Amino acid sequence: MSFPTADPAAGQAVTAADRAHVFHSWSAQAQIAPLAVAGAEGSYFWDYEGNRYLDFSSQLVNTNIGHQHPKVVAAIQQQAAALCTMAPGFAVEPRSEAARLIAERTPGDLDKIFFTNGGAEANENAIRLARLHTGRQKVLATYRSYHGATANAIALTGDPRRWPNETGTSGVVHFWGPYPYRSAFHAENEAQECERALAHLEQVIAFEGPHTVAAIILETVVGTAGVLIPPPGYLAGVREICDRYGIVFILDEVMAGFGRTGAWFAADHWGITPDLLTFAKGVNSGYVPLGGVAISAEIAATFADRPFPGGLTYSGHPLACASAVATINAMAEEGIVENARRIGETVLGPGLRELAERHPSVGEVRGLGVFWALDLVRDRATREPLVPYNAAGAANAPMAELAAACKKRGLWPFINMNRFHVVPPCTVTAEEARAGLAVLDEALNAADALMN
Amino acid sequence: MSFPTADPAAGQAVTAADRAHVFHSWSAQAQIAPLAVAGAEGSYFWDYEGNRYLDFSSQLVNTNIGHQHPKVVAAIQQQAAALCTMAPGFAVEPRSEAARLIAERTPGDLDKIFFTNGGAEANENAIRLARLHTGRQKVLATYRSYHGATANAIALTGDPRRWPNETGTSGVVHFWGPYPYRSAFHAENEAQECERALAHLEQVIAFEGPHTVAAIILETVVGTAGVLIPPPGYLAGVREICDRYGIVFILDEVMAGFGRTGAWFAADHWGITPDLLTFAKGVNSGYVPLGGVAISAEIAATFADRPFPGGLTYSGHPLACASAVATINAMAEEGIVENARRIGETVLGPGLRELAERHPSVGEVRGLGVFWALDLVRDRATREPLVPYNAAGAANAPMAELAAACKKRGLWPFINMNRFHVVPPCTVTAEEARAGLAVLDEALNAADALMN
Repeated sequence: MSFPTADPAAGQAVTAADRAHVFHSWSAQAQIAPLAVAGAEGSYFWDYEGNRYLDFSSQLVNTNIGHQHPKVVAAIQQQAAALCTMAPGFAVEPRSEAARLIAERTPGDLDKIFFTNGGAEANENAIRLARLHTGRQKVLATYRSYHGATANAIALTGDPRRWPNETGTSGVVHFWGPYPYRSAFHAENEAQECERALAHLEQVIAFEGPHTVAAIILETVVGTAGVLIPPPGYLAGVREICDRYGIVFILDEVMAGFGRTGAWFAADHWGITPDLLTFAKGVNSGYVPLGGVAISAEIAATFADRPFPGGLTYSGHPLACASAVATINAMAEEGIVENARRIGETVLGPGLRELAERHPSVGEVRGLGVFWALDLVRDRATREPLVPYNAAGAANAPMAELAAACKKRGLWPFINMNRFHVVPPCTVTAEEARAGLAVLDEALNAADALMN
Repeated sequence: MSFPTADPAAGQAVTAADRAHVFHSWSAQAQIAPLAVAGAEGSYFWDYEGNRYLDFSSQLVNTNIGHQHPKVVAAIQQQAAALCTMAPGFAVEPRSEAARLIAERTPGDLDKIFFTNGGAEANENAIRLARLHTGRQKVLATYRSYHGATANAIALTGDPRRWPNETGTSGVVHFWGPYPYRSAFHAENEAQECERALAHLEQVIAFEGPHTVAAIILETVVGTAGVLIPPPGYLAGVREICDRYGIVFILDEVMAGFGRTGAWFAADHWGITPDLLTFAKGVNSGYVPLGGVAISAEIAATFADRPFPGGLTYSGHPLACASAVATINAMAEEGIVENARRIGETVLGPGLRELAERHPSVGEVRGLGVFWALDLVRDRATREPLVPYNAAGAANAPMAELAAACKKRGLWPFINMNRFHVVPPCTVTAEEARAGLAVLDEALNAADALMN
């Protein structure tokens, strides 16, 4: 571990240029004060002031293999020396090998890989495949989900590539997925939640017209919207519904895939094979932008003699693919997926449940592997969230204070609405995980003080 | 120059894994035979059979700095060793520096940079900025354009980030841009084309309702749709119309920017400052996926205290930004933009016009810098295109034969519909450019034979 050396002047220069010229994601630009980061390694990163942070966020839940894994760094350096970029129309070694390694691990017959630059484009292309494969328009997605932020570029385009893609955003229908702790169906247990959620989905499909529905897209484990683990039977039930109506089943594993849940893919926990599976983040821990769709044999066959009307300049980017090859091989060689599972079972699960016993603000603990959430409440009986849905400013102060309390103690948190997500790298050690839980323990005292 | 060494067995392995597992962009998967590429340097790449190709396509018009520029390769290797990835919420040195260097070169007050993974996402975010800044919905784009292939992800998303983005694809209105050689306005010269194209745009705006139009997006020089150079006065006229109606003027310089036209930005040729300028490709020659939007002070101010509802995990990716820093510095140090201008003025322009004199299938030659097109025709009087719009299969055979004739002679072409685009790297030498033109000269004989 390189020890962080303070260099405040260098940090100030980085910050000054950032504030002058960088426009940041999801932010009011005058109300943010981005921390200048000097370096990172494994489960830690550090600033220019000599402060080190335990990364319980894996950045945006993407550095599954930790920061600066030496094998992945070396692979990027070697590929950079060999061949940085080559257009998608060519065959290149790292692209072939990344596709082979991914196809080897995806469930069932998902053996063709279409590469993108990230998760949003992966979902874009999954929807495109599903609509053209079925000849139908509607796509069903859950109200608690995040599938990316793109919406317009192909509609702007004036060339024939627009024609097969003009479906636009019309036809997206949102339904309610299972969430036993805050059931939309007044269910009293997991089995009932599963049964009622499937009945609800059946009813939405019936009223939308099954023959109009191209696809159902689900995050296998819902990520940013709450680390929601599907109850036993739910995914199998959706699979059965899709089969019955000829609907394409898309699993979005952008956040859940590549070790996050203690399995290569979250779908493995339930033995489910979707028709399309989207990935990004963990595939190469975001060391180089990369995402993609794994495609079933049946859907791939649709585009054997009919052109697939989608693409991008950097599809199957050699540098990105080389980093994926190194990441997947390192994860396999070093048992990183197994580590995530073990840490979840032996440290994070028990540790978070123990915190819940002592902190009344913790309404529910849920998770798998290194993918956990605390659902924080003002009242355990009513389950009123600690802050309202989409709270900002003063209304969101309790969560902002919780984040500040963690940062002050050297723990970098991932917070969304009333939830504290515990999402360290899959490489996190038991000692690091316990150190993070100890900080969280102290930080939760402030939340407890807000109980009704 | 590393000399290509034949290794057919290695090439066959790459191809076999490609055919088994890689799903390619814009293709009927069973009808393609991707060339396996072993390496690349400068203006050339080579296969595993010992064949070397002069890259007159710059891949997908992105390797402006040529293949494997040593300074950019070294920068990627150094940044990989230092810090591969860091979430967009932080300030990091390569992100700050890339933003500063880009802002220094973009026209006028376009001094804030929002980074994306590529051009489609750059345009996505430009539209988002324009709609939220104006509070209006419609976006005007030309029929001859390519702005990317995304359309759906945010509509699928079920969280509050969907709300400000639900405008979807409705409200995109296509109009006709200037194209003197095939005038939509029956113009007889450039000045008339400009005047009539502006009048047409004014009329579209009047009938759509100026107060409903958020933005006009143009490729400064239209790229894939034909290397269409705007006639003098057109861009200034659009700028004036936008100012008059409070419409955001977006210039898409994904293909035209960073040296392609012999200037840092194509807008520089006409002294125009748009409100938003999108880029990708040449910013780092695609060595790492990167794109972005340069934002005016006025639009940036809209999001000072109001959150910008867009973002992506890899916005301002450190590895991508480090490669942009190295690319921009190398282009400046080595006079690469000036080289592109000089090659256009002294070799490609005169050489292509000379070809046009001898090959009756060449209807028009147009271009700037290293950004040229031959508009191929069956009949110079009627200007009937050599192949119909969006031709495929047998109807497209003449263009397929032209491509094959070039490849056979070691020249890798860029062809779109009835056009042969001459788009080598900005680093191309006069000798290389002349060698490519000599191949093209031979290959055009086949096209000439098809004249009516």
